[in-house]
Amino acid sequence: MSNKPTLHTVLSPRLLDIYDISNCVVVIIDVFRATSTIATALYNGAARVIPVDTVEQCIQIGKTTGGITAGERDGKVIDGLDYGNSPAEYPRSFIEGKTLVLTTTNGTRLLHMALNNGAAEVVTGSFPNLSAVCNHLKMQKKNVILGCSAWKDRFNLEDALFAGAVIKQIQDYFTIHCDSSLMAADLYSLHKNDMHSFIRRTTHWHRLASYGLEKDLEYCVLPDVANVLPVYKNGDLIV
Amino acid sequence: MSNKPTLHTVLSPRLLDIYDISNCVVVIIDVFRATSTIATALYNGAARVIPVDTVEQCIQIGKTTGGITAGERDGKVIDGLDYGNSPAEYPRSFIEGKTLVLTTTNGTRLLHMALNNGAAEVVTGSFPNLSAVCNHLKMQKKNVILGCSAWKDRFNLEDALFAGAVIKQIQDYFTIHCDSSLMAADLYSLHKNDMHSFIRRTTHWHRLASYGLEKDLEYCVLPDVANVLPVYKNGDLIV
Repeated sequence: MSNKPTLHTVLSPRLLDIYDISNCVVVIIDVFRATSTIATALYNGAARVIPVDTVEQCIQIGKTTGGITAGERDGKVIDGLDYGNSPAEYPRSFIEGKTLVLTTTNGTRLLHMALNNGAAEVVTGSFPNLSAVCNHLKMQKKNVILGCSAWKDRFNLEDALFAGAVIKQIQDYFTIHCDSSLMAADLYSLHKNDMHSFIRRTTHWHRLASYGLEKDLEYCVLPDVANVLPVYKNGDLIV
Repeated sequence: MSNKPTLHTVLSPRLLDIYDISNCVVVIIDVFRATSTIATALYNGAARVIPVDTVEQCIQIGKTTGGITAGERDGKVIDGLDYGNSPAEYPRSFIEGKTLVLTTTNGTRLLHMALNNGAAEVVTGSFPNLSAVCNHLKMQKKNVILGCSAWKDRFNLEDALFAGAVIKQIQDYFTIHCDSSLMAADLYSLHKNDMHSFIRRTTHWHRLASYGLEKDLEYCVLPDVANVLPVYKNGDLIV
């Protein structure tokens, strides 16, 4: 038998509690766009990103921390918040040294579920920080959960695509008895050379492209353009 | 806008209630091996198959109907039942005209969930009855749910592979805004010419092959070898 740690892919927050995630490193994946934005803001020097579930919390924590509040619904900045959920809104000239308080629906919920279920460590993953995630997972020698945030609990292609990209890089370091992981790796192998056309087929593309977010979504599948590792500690995502 | 009915693929029973399945035809998919066995028994002339959740129900309904009781755990016939869950156990010479009372874990549970959630019609699908399922769905002009039984709520490759095979045959007749369906279709396209080697990669293969069930599993991915449509009516699956 192998002594390698295990790796599983969870395709929806609804499926998280099927897995024993205690002692696991859980990678929260929300490719369009929360975890891509988190990596980008931290890469550009944000002091921290505070992920929150609700708009009310976002406004309140924004006040107590002096942070920038951010969140979108239907492609628009939410009333009462300062900015949206686009990585393009957070260049170094704007975000360096600041606190970003970010409310998103799918990704933040999964992150809090992972914490409540006893994950040993929670980090966030996206194509912009693909290698940073892979290098970390290889070094940790702990069991891994690749947690796809999905969309309202429905499986989505782009999060599975990222899980597959991670698996293809690190599979030799893990024992993988997990059909979700095999599927994700297949999906990535099939589409790694046509990612920009592939993402146009996803339901999320159709949802967001109607708000004029095509450039944003294309950025979100660029590997290693914001290559830092956001780690959750005491309420903050920091690098 | 299109007037075509919709089609969605549900990757685990845990995800079924995300979808509105009222007025839908729900296809229960449990490739290894419940729905393959159901198609085979009915193709070989069984009068009906009664799917039940528990061993106790199986024994009781076997007594009241005079039916053959069947079910497996860990590759062996369950104590107190007559036969197992292998399609090879039900040739015409044995099953013709008889009632089969079958207890399985994943498939039967999903079938009852679909009924409880108000499905308009429940049928069962597997490679042995692939074309019968596709022809029926094309004719019905109703919304469709392809329901994967999964394994203890975990996504499995073989059920998704079958969903993909159905989608590739009938996609022109439906509006498909569903990432699970796009993934399943991709998976089938990628592996349709290497199905026998592909199924050897699945977790279920590793679970069942250790019981000497390789021949059974290979049968379960043969298209149209038991090409009937099992429809659920008043507690029975009949053709």
